[in-house]
Amino acid sequence: MENKNTKIAILGGGSWATAIAKIVLQNVDKIYWYMRRQEQIDEFIHLGKNPFYLTGARFDTNRIHFTDDINQVIELADILIFAIPSPYLEDHLKILKVSLEDKIIISAIKGIIPEKNYIISDFFEAEYKIPKENIAVISGPCHAEEVALERLSYLTIASVSSELTKVLHSIFSTDFINIAISNDIAGIEYSAIMKNIYAIMSGISHGLKYGDNFQAVLISNAIQEIDGFCNAIHPFPRNINQSAYLGDLLGTAYSQFSRNRLFGNMIGKGYSIRAAKIELGMIEEGYFATKCIYETNKKYKFDLPIVNTAYDILYNNAIPATKIKELSNKLV
Amino acid sequence: MENKNTKIAILGGGSWATAIAKIVLQNVDKIYWYMRRQEQIDEFIHLGKNPFYLTGARFDTNRIHFTDDINQVIELADILIFAIPSPYLEDHLKILKVSLEDKIIISAIKGIIPEKNYIISDFFEAEYKIPKENIAVISGPCHAEEVALERLSYLTIASVSSELTKVLHSIFSTDFINIAISNDIAGIEYSAIMKNIYAIMSGISHGLKYGDNFQAVLISNAIQEIDGFCNAIHPFPRNINQSAYLGDLLGTAYSQFSRNRLFGNMIGKGYSIRAAKIELGMIEEGYFATKCIYETNKKYKFDLPIVNTAYDILYNNAIPATKIKELSNKLV
Repeated sequence: MENKNTKIAILGGGSWATAIAKIVLQNVDKIYWYMRRQEQIDEFIHLGKNPFYLTGARFDTNRIHFTDDINQVIELADILIFAIPSPYLEDHLKILKVSLEDKIIISAIKGIIPEKNYIISDFFEAEYKIPKENIAVISGPCHAEEVALERLSYLTIASVSSELTKVLHSIFSTDFINIAISNDIAGIEYSAIMKNIYAIMSGISHGLKYGDNFQAVLISNAIQEIDGFCNAIHPFPRNINQSAYLGDLLGTAYSQFSRNRLFGNMIGKGYSIRAAKIELGMIEEGYFATKCIYETNKKYKFDLPIVNTAYDILYNNAIPATKIKELSNKLV
Repeated sequence: MENKNTKIAILGGGSWATAIAKIVLQNVDKIYWYMRRQEQIDEFIHLGKNPFYLTGARFDTNRIHFTDDINQVIELADILIFAIPSPYLEDHLKILKVSLEDKIIISAIKGIIPEKNYIISDFFEAEYKIPKENIAVISGPCHAEEVALERLSYLTIASVSSELTKVLHSIFSTDFINIAISNDIAGIEYSAIMKNIYAIMSGISHGLKYGDNFQAVLISNAIQEIDGFCNAIHPFPRNINQSAYLGDLLGTAYSQFSRNRLFGNMIGKGYSIRAAKIELGMIEEGYFATKCIYETNKKYKFDLPIVNTAYDILYNNAIPATKIKELSNKLV
């Protein structure tokens, strides 16, 4: 696998997909880029930028082969970088006619497949028979907006294949992106998923007028939940305070821009979930993550008071003020 | 030691002293309160509140015995809660005529004695021969402003004496203060001291236009430095992600109100240390902490790239932009 000959595709039209395109185009001459809607592609080519996301990032569209045909993009490319919100991933893939065999699958998705409760690496392995050594995940504390501004950011690439991480390192490393390498795929995926639950809970407690002192305690307890849960589900000598885990949590839970936190804030302020959903135009990853982790944990029974509280509020109509008060007595 | 008969004194007139007075007065009828300046006391009694700090918190001054005489307050009280900035502590104590023997010393100070590089518990033990079992420290992520607003906050009380922690638990526990107990005095003190260095470094990088992605990585690395340093200096089976350690770091390093962070921000924006000092009216704890930890670490030689960078910037006139850039390549 050599950079110049490797054909790289990005799948997804959102802000994270756009940030990744910007990064990858620092290192390769040309990319393939799949977006579902032809109008978005037309507008992108017309404007020289994504019309909806990271509108400050300009692109040389001569270096991008756009397509709204997922079969075409998969046929053309060797490395497929998925940056599609996890709840919609199966929708995109269900019209697949070409094989994913022999493709390198990179997940830039921080979420799970709802109902099936799969993390993305497991999903591709189980349902598409992709061998683990052809799968990698990209994570880390990384607001797409800051990538657009070329503010120094750190990504962690996780794969069991050191050959693959080497290639990906050369594709993703730039002046403004520092890369760390890991082989803790499941830990990094679960951690990235769980952080959105804590971002929602940060928002809920903020909406209920809890302050920064409480937030600091909530997040200290949150990283302990992540550590314990990841150790239960995937024992690995990880240091949970590395940026792929703690950093990713901090980047989201302390972000005023996190949509999960905003969703939680609305719930804390008294919006119903339905109303918050209508207002935001979509359901945030953390909502699905809450159910996934809650259900997955039935098998492991690790003590997850924050996740359980989120579940009670989001799925059992529990009163946020009462539940956060109860939770506050379990935190230390 | 029973609450009703125990005579409790607070030493210091700042915002943290005021917050502690508010907490303690929830549980005891009367407190002794030492402030250096009689004008501040007069004004406090006149207004029914501290004229300079936490002006939203009102007090029944009939329940407070004020004095500007440190000898008097020490003579009268059994439990002395020190909330004086560490650089000034020795100034206050140097006129002591009465003995501290048999007194219970509680440090609410998050800092070190400059030059001597003592943490507060060691200082009282070494220079005033207070036995360790009569010393406790209070720490935790706790902005005084939020205590004034009665927003739920968490404090950790650390002492080797379980009898003492029991008494302090009853004095400090209120509807809006949850208490955790620890016997890791040195770890909690060093952690509280070090966090101010990272708050300065957060400010410096913010001043240099590094964003939230970098901040998340900086803090992830910071807690690893705290963990490693504390393990080197005081081996103890601590969980560094508990709120007394990580929470305290988060509460400060992510606070827009942290004076240490503000100080760093000015340095990052190009102020000289002298100019920042004049503008802020004092030198922040983190400035002294940087030298203390840097020097103390000469013996332990634990790898502290962030502390070393802070030292180079604050004490060796190194250029912030260059040093943060160098540092950024050491973080993961």
